[in-house]
Amino acid sequence: MTEQDSQLAKLAAERNAVEVERAQLTVELDIGDTDSLEAEVRLYSRKFPKIFSRSKNAEMFDSSGNRYIDFFCGAGALNYGHNNDTIKRMVIQYLTQDGIMHGLDMKTVIRQQFIRKFHDTILKPRGLNYKVQFCGPTGADAVEAAIKLARKVTGRDLIIAFTGAYHGMSRGALSVTGGVRARAAGRVHIHNTSFVPFEVGPEGSFDSVGYIERLLLDASSGHEKPAAIILEPLQMEGGIYLASSAWLQRLRDLANRHGILLICDEIQTGCGRTGPFFCFEGSQIVPDIVTVSKSISGYGFPMSLLLFKRELDVWEPGEHTGTFRGNQLAFVSASAALDFWQDADFKARIDMNGESMRSFGLKIQKKDSSLRVRGQGAVLGIDTGPTDQGRRAARIQEECFNRGLIVELCGRDDEVVKIMPPINIDTPTLNEGFAILQAALEASA
Amino acid sequence: MTEQDSQLAKLAAERNAVEVERAQLTVELDIGDTDSLEAEVRLYSRKFPKIFSRSKNAEMFDSSGNRYIDFFCGAGALNYGHNNDTIKRMVIQYLTQDGIMHGLDMKTVIRQQFIRKFHDTILKPRGLNYKVQFCGPTGADAVEAAIKLARKVTGRDLIIAFTGAYHGMSRGALSVTGGVRARAAGRVHIHNTSFVPFEVGPEGSFDSVGYIERLLLDASSGHEKPAAIILEPLQMEGGIYLASSAWLQRLRDLANRHGILLICDEIQTGCGRTGPFFCFEGSQIVPDIVTVSKSISGYGFPMSLLLFKRELDVWEPGEHTGTFRGNQLAFVSASAALDFWQDADFKARIDMNGESMRSFGLKIQKKDSSLRVRGQGAVLGIDTGPTDQGRRAARIQEECFNRGLIVELCGRDDEVVKIMPPINIDTPTLNEGFAILQAALEASA
Amino acid sequence: MTEQDSQLAKLAAERNAVEVERAQLTVELDIGDTDSLEAEVRLYSRKFPKIFSRSKNAEMFDSSGNRYIDFFCGAGALNYGHNNDTIKRMVIQYLTQDGIMHGLDMKTVIRQQFIRKFHDTILKPRGLNYKVQFCGPTGADAVEAAIKLARKVTGRDLIIAFTGAYHGMSRGALSVTGGVRARAAGRVHIHNTSFVPFEVGPEGSFDSVGYIERLLLDASSGHEKPAAIILEPLQMEGGIYLASSAWLQRLRDLANRHGILLICDEIQTGCGRTGPFFCFEGSQIVPDIVTVSKSISGYGFPMSLLLFKRELDVWEPGEHTGTFRGNQLAFVSASAALDFWQDADFKARIDMNGESMRSFGLKIQKKDSSLRVRGQGAVLGIDTGPTDQGRRAARIQEECFNRGLIVELCGRDDEVVKIMPPINIDTPTLNEGFAILQAALEASA
Amino acid sequence: MTEQDSQLAKLAAERNAVEVERAQLTVELDIGDTDSLEAEVRLYSRKFPKIFSRSKNAEMFDSSGNRYIDFFCGAGALNYGHNNDTIKRMVIQYLTQDGIMHGLDMKTVIRQQFIRKFHDTILKPRGLNYKVQFCGPTGADAVEAAIKLARKVTGRDLIIAFTGAYHGMSRGALSVTGGVRARAAGRVHIHNTSFVPFEVGPEGSFDSVGYIERLLLDASSGHEKPAAIILEPLQMEGGIYLASSAWLQRLRDLANRHGILLICDEIQTGCGRTGPFFCFEGSQIVPDIVTVSKSISGYGFPMSLLLFKRELDVWEPGEHTGTFRGNQLAFVSASAALDFWQDADFKARIDMNGESMRSFGLKIQKKDSSLRVRGQGAVLGIDTGPTDQGRRAARIQEECFNRGLIVELCGRDDEVVKIMPPINIDTPTLNEGFAILQAALEASA
Repeated sequence: MTEQDSQLAKLAAERNAVEVERAQLTVELDIGDTDSLEAEVRLYSRKFPKIFSRSKNAEMFDSSGNRYIDFFCGAGALNYGHNNDTIKRMVIQYLTQDGIMHGLDMKTVIRQQFIRKFHDTILKPRGLNYKVQFCGPTGADAVEAAIKLARKVTGRDLIIAFTGAYHGMSRGALSVTGGVRARAAGRVHIHNTSFVPFEVGPEGSFDSVGYIERLLLDASSGHEKPAAIILEPLQMEGGIYLASSAWLQRLRDLANRHGILLICDEIQTGCGRTGPFFCFEGSQIVPDIVTVSKSISGYGFPMSLLLFKRELDVWEPGEHTGTFRGNQLAFVSASAALDFWQDADFKARIDMNGESMRSFGLKIQKKDSSLRVRGQGAVLGIDTGPTDQGRRAARIQEECFNRGLIVELCGRDDEVVKIMPPINIDTPTLNEGFAILQAALEASA
Repeated sequence: MTEQDSQLAKLAAERNAVEVERAQLTVELDIGDTDSLEAEVRLYSRKFPKIFSRSKNAEMFDSSGNRYIDFFCGAGALNYGHNNDTIKRMVIQYLTQDGIMHGLDMKTVIRQQFIRKFHDTILKPRGLNYKVQFCGPTGADAVEAAIKLARKVTGRDLIIAFTGAYHGMSRGALSVTGGVRARAAGRVHIHNTSFVPFEVGPEGSFDSVGYIERLLLDASSGHEKPAAIILEPLQMEGGIYLASSAWLQRLRDLANRHGILLICDEIQTGCGRTGPFFCFEGSQIVPDIVTVSKSISGYGFPMSLLLFKRELDVWEPGEHTGTFRGNQLAFVSASAALDFWQDADFKARIDMNGESMRSFGLKIQKKDSSLRVRGQGAVLGIDTGPTDQGRRAARIQEECFNRGLIVELCGRDDEVVKIMPPINIDTPTLNEGFAILQAALEASA
Repeated sequence: MTEQDSQLAKLAAERNAVEVERAQLTVELDIGDTDSLEAEVRLYSRKFPKIFSRSKNAEMFDSSGNRYIDFFCGAGALNYGHNNDTIKRMVIQYLTQDGIMHGLDMKTVIRQQFIRKFHDTILKPRGLNYKVQFCGPTGADAVEAAIKLARKVTGRDLIIAFTGAYHGMSRGALSVTGGVRARAAGRVHIHNTSFVPFEVGPEGSFDSVGYIERLLLDASSGHEKPAAIILEPLQMEGGIYLASSAWLQRLRDLANRHGILLICDEIQTGCGRTGPFFCFEGSQIVPDIVTVSKSISGYGFPMSLLLFKRELDVWEPGEHTGTFRGNQLAFVSASAALDFWQDADFKARIDMNGESMRSFGLKIQKKDSSLRVRGQGAVLGIDTGPTDQGRRAARIQEECFNRGLIVELCGRDDEVVKIMPPINIDTPTLNEGFAILQAALEASA
Repeated sequence: MTEQDSQLAKLAAERNAVEVERAQLTVELDIGDTDSLEAEVRLYSRKFPKIFSRSKNAEMFDSSGNRYIDFFCGAGALNYGHNNDTIKRMVIQYLTQDGIMHGLDMKTVIRQQFIRKFHDTILKPRGLNYKVQFCGPTGADAVEAAIKLARKVTGRDLIIAFTGAYHGMSRGALSVTGGVRARAAGRVHIHNTSFVPFEVGPEGSFDSVGYIERLLLDASSGHEKPAAIILEPLQMEGGIYLASSAWLQRLRDLANRHGILLICDEIQTGCGRTGPFFCFEGSQIVPDIVTVSKSISGYGFPMSLLLFKRELDVWEPGEHTGTFRGNQLAFVSASAALDFWQDADFKARIDMNGESMRSFGLKIQKKDSSLRVRGQGAVLGIDTGPTDQGRRAARIQEECFNRGLIVELCGRDDEVVKIMPPINIDTPTLNEGFAILQAALEASA
């Protein structure tokens, strides 16, 4: 046997082993009861009570081979869909060639390539003169770093956050997260945070900027000058509430005039979810600090970035660290995903899909006047209203799942159905999902 | 061309592409200056100023093809070395077959398999009746969850932590971390935490248990009853200080008598670093809550677990969440790595390596009486003493790197050289590393 | 010499000694420079740079015999004027007969008499079923006790306070005080407090009740349920801003519906300053907890009370204590002062004076359209507007003092002249004061 | 009738009125039940269930005319006994001549005289170059001001306090008070405070200074550099534990070397209670900041002072205020009391009494080996031991009261009988008290 034969034989054997395992993934597993081995904190396994095995683009399959269209996308971590072939190839290659898998913040080929590519592909064309920091690979850690940096730069402690905000579950991130139940679980009280109603929300609109200015101008407001204002330009968990450009511009102006840093949390809204790469692009503002995570790796791998203006870089080496602050495989996939942003077809597709979402939203609102729809780009929120504490929304979710569509809820009482297909989903699958959703809306009415 | 031919050709083409890219990884990259694009917070790229490209087992290679023996192992995230072939095969297979990459806490085949396997392989044989919780894939998030759970279970706020402790950089984790500089960067003050000297440390030994009991028995101690005591059984960042079994047993007893939860942070000490899977096993105690991360994935992938006694499971669904709380690819590699713990050869090797480390430590201490060595299993701390603020240790590190060995420092002033080879390192490479280290010690004297 | 002669001789000698000392009080003292012996924190000695020696009713005299009309009244601690003869007689008698001067909270004759009399004279006729607690004899300590009680009763931590609020300078009281400068001096940050704009203020009106309700109804407002809302029904230090009855009633209703305690701080507004004994009486609401201090002793002696609804009495013995929590001589004077409230002439006089104040206010506003006047009862605020950072108000104060009238400033920038004569001042002196004020207003224009 | 006749008649009439009222004070009052009108927080009225009416020097009388010897002295507020005739004369004169009663921090004749006299009589002879600040007239407020000043001067937040410490009940004072029960009532958690065991206490001795130094030298101690260390040189409420001179000197030295302010709380130990005017005098140290209250007025009137080194005076005008920060009548009595400290007979008496207390202590300890006595000057603690949770001490207190002696308890479980007669008590009354105490000790055995 020649060496080539031998090599091909080896490759074939490997491929064979893959097939055998794939088979295993489609049969019921004999793993017994795992629920009793796991914490009660689990959430989605209750809502979607299947064992999933494979996935591709907008589809997931359970261990019995059932197919589901995914309009949830890992809570925004899978904007480019599941197991994108282009990215997959790069990832497997990197693994195959024994690229560095873990390197803290040592320089690696793929790490430095990512930095350069992110700068050249995303930051530079948008005129964003940001530095990049790799955080522990969770959005929450980027938020922790953002708050830490803002406090260090300004020497101040107070952060202004908004009602409806969701920034994460670690203590610093929870301190600026509005959810009363999540805060209570962590025994997190108001401390160096002041919550202000967001521009829009279930209780109606609010002149947040005027209100903050009122506090800042009042020498007896109880509010020391804040280090930063943190916001999501489109509140997702809060119930799909989009800040207007005018409001963001006024907020940016206020922050400038008072020397307060503006932190934009793009963890869920970034990476094209709302159309442009960053949601804030639509408003012409430039935040001082930006958090990025979820879909940045493009393949569901844990990764997060902090971006901030060059002049804010007061970090001493090692002041914010984390073992996994450089997830190398995520750099591989993230670099591959950045290529999408130079592809005109990709951009045309996400625009088209955004338009389809918008049309669908208008249609269902017209059909069922009890619903209110909101959204931007590839996010659509279907608000069932506050009157039934989210019961109808829960029914919609269940009806969808029974029909093979995965959707998640958001809003204060989980009263809003949150529609987030892959931003580059193909049209037939998108329409198939819409049809299921339409049926579920009717079934739940 | 038959179908088989075509398939083999395709496989060969893929393999070829791999080789091309591998070549790319060994030439200097034309990526220009990336330092100016990145935050000043970066640390290791300053200490090890090379661009790394490939790695295998105990070896790393830079982009010029230079070889380094790795006695740092990703700060403990690579206990089984780099790119272990067994694990690698499983990871590539999983990717190839489009296994679920991201699923939040939905059930997936690999996720449920991991839970079962972790229970059967690790917990059950050790008589540990723990439930498993998947946290955001950083050690810090496991610490955040541990503290949150302890407070929720007890309805109390105070946590007792130890001087020298390192638990992470997010706000909750920092609140129990001793490092004054790291705390200052986050403007983290003492709040619901009380720090007590660890049993051992640079300032000598301390009767921590007697001290805590004194506080608990004193109705005027200023200390409300704590929710929990959190500790590393072997303090790593603090400078390689091992708690004695007697001390741990007294602490366990004290916690029992007063109804205080004992949290054991095994993030760096776990997964075999000190010999057994958990470091605490050596002392016969059973903590109430255990944090696991770093090497649990076995391949450097971000992953973390919280383990806790069944009766503490007061979580409501979704009370502690995180987008990446189920890193599926890490489940694949982690499952593969669990097999090691059923392999007698593996266990024999880590024992033998531990013994080699111990002997080497004794030898260098004998040779250079200004050094103090401490350690357990595959951890060795070479303490250069407090008198020169870590200057000699820095020289040792630099001399090692110049000779092709990567070691990290720890201790209050980075005065301790921390030796952490892969726990399953082969003997020749281990000895090669020892020889370099020996030379560096002499060169730095 | 008969015994009577001897006694009278002795009394005459004492009286003579008094005269000698009185003489001393009117000559310049040879006490040298005391400024250098005293902390820079002193405030009023800078504004009113004289050494005062004697006082009577609405008049003060300096050591050179110069006379001043007092429209400041010890920041509200001298509502009945200086050295009221009726009270004075009782105080001297008590001293003469060696009544208990200090007794912590032991029962004493005068203490129990005060409790009974306060209940019969003030509480019962107003239908207020409050219990009485004696606090450390400062308003701040009553505020501390109020907050402590509210938190203990509810088991909650958050307190809602208002912008413009002033409740005192100890840490707990500062935590609900709006003044940014005072807070900064104590390094007091927002912690378990949320500040909401008051109904009225320099920045205009605000729907505080609607705003609080919005926060309470929003499960993502970041606001846990508060223990209490604390307010001054008429903000004094904030700049003389009176809450409307409608607003107070809505706030009372909101607090009832949500199970939140309403704390009314009557320290400066109480004891008849605004007309009725408590300022809140005008609005028909009944607070849950009331703080009383300043003029409660009637003679300028330190004293404070906490009043609260009977069902809130969850105190354990000694849970809030203080060495001077029973200032016995203050009980003597306070008991004497309570008699005023059963005297129809007294009540007619304070009503008449309130009416005079109101008319005067209207008159000066008419004359000088740059002024805005606000007030209630015997409080008049002359707002010089925000444009000159209080410079004109400072001139008015100085012009008054130069003409023999003492007035104080309030408001965010000390831009409001605060007129607070004794509530029972005689008409000629009141008019004399008005005339000086009128002249000062003109001189400062 | 001549004018003189008329005047004498008037004086005689006043004297007569006094007699009539005195009579009233010795009969039972018809004030009904006052307990139901008052908060459950009351404490001493439960322990000493009588209504007191008159007092003189070391004696108190209840409304039935029963006599009690007072070895409690208003928790240290009556070091010179009740209603001292010398002071009384000055107080009545001042009232008679309509001296200023209330003046905030305006200069008054008596205020400036007190400052000068305090400087000349107390500070200057002791070489103490302190500035004087008048606080709200409670010890707690002096503590609040001390902490505030220390933080403002240093720009730091952390305060080190000691187990067993008692500094007051307002939020800032509670933050450095050890009592767990009192802290819990206020929901006060550890925040910017670190508690360290005092040199002596029920759990034995402790090397507090070595311990603090250990924390300060450890870059991983979790302790940022403290603003201040606050201590009572003799812990009173904690159970009568006296810091040794050596310990205080080491603490002073440590504070100097690290740039930490030393705050000495002399509220209960000052004004001669332990022999010298300040307790710290015995140790040759000079604190940076000293709190004074309780007996400073000499007559039981509320008053407190903050003393601090000249160079620490960073206050801006009005940064720490309070309506009663100048209790004028207390200045009168305090000035009179200062004269005692220039009287050799007075000093001889307090020395003699201190010696008698010491001898008595030794005697009872010899007689009853289950007791431990501790003390200094006119403080004697009789420790009944920890075994019965203060039950014997409570019996001793009750037996004393039944025999006409008032004593208070202290210590963690109120297990220590605290003996504090007037420091200038006459010998027969002191011995009478000793005899009662002796009998009570025997009756309780």
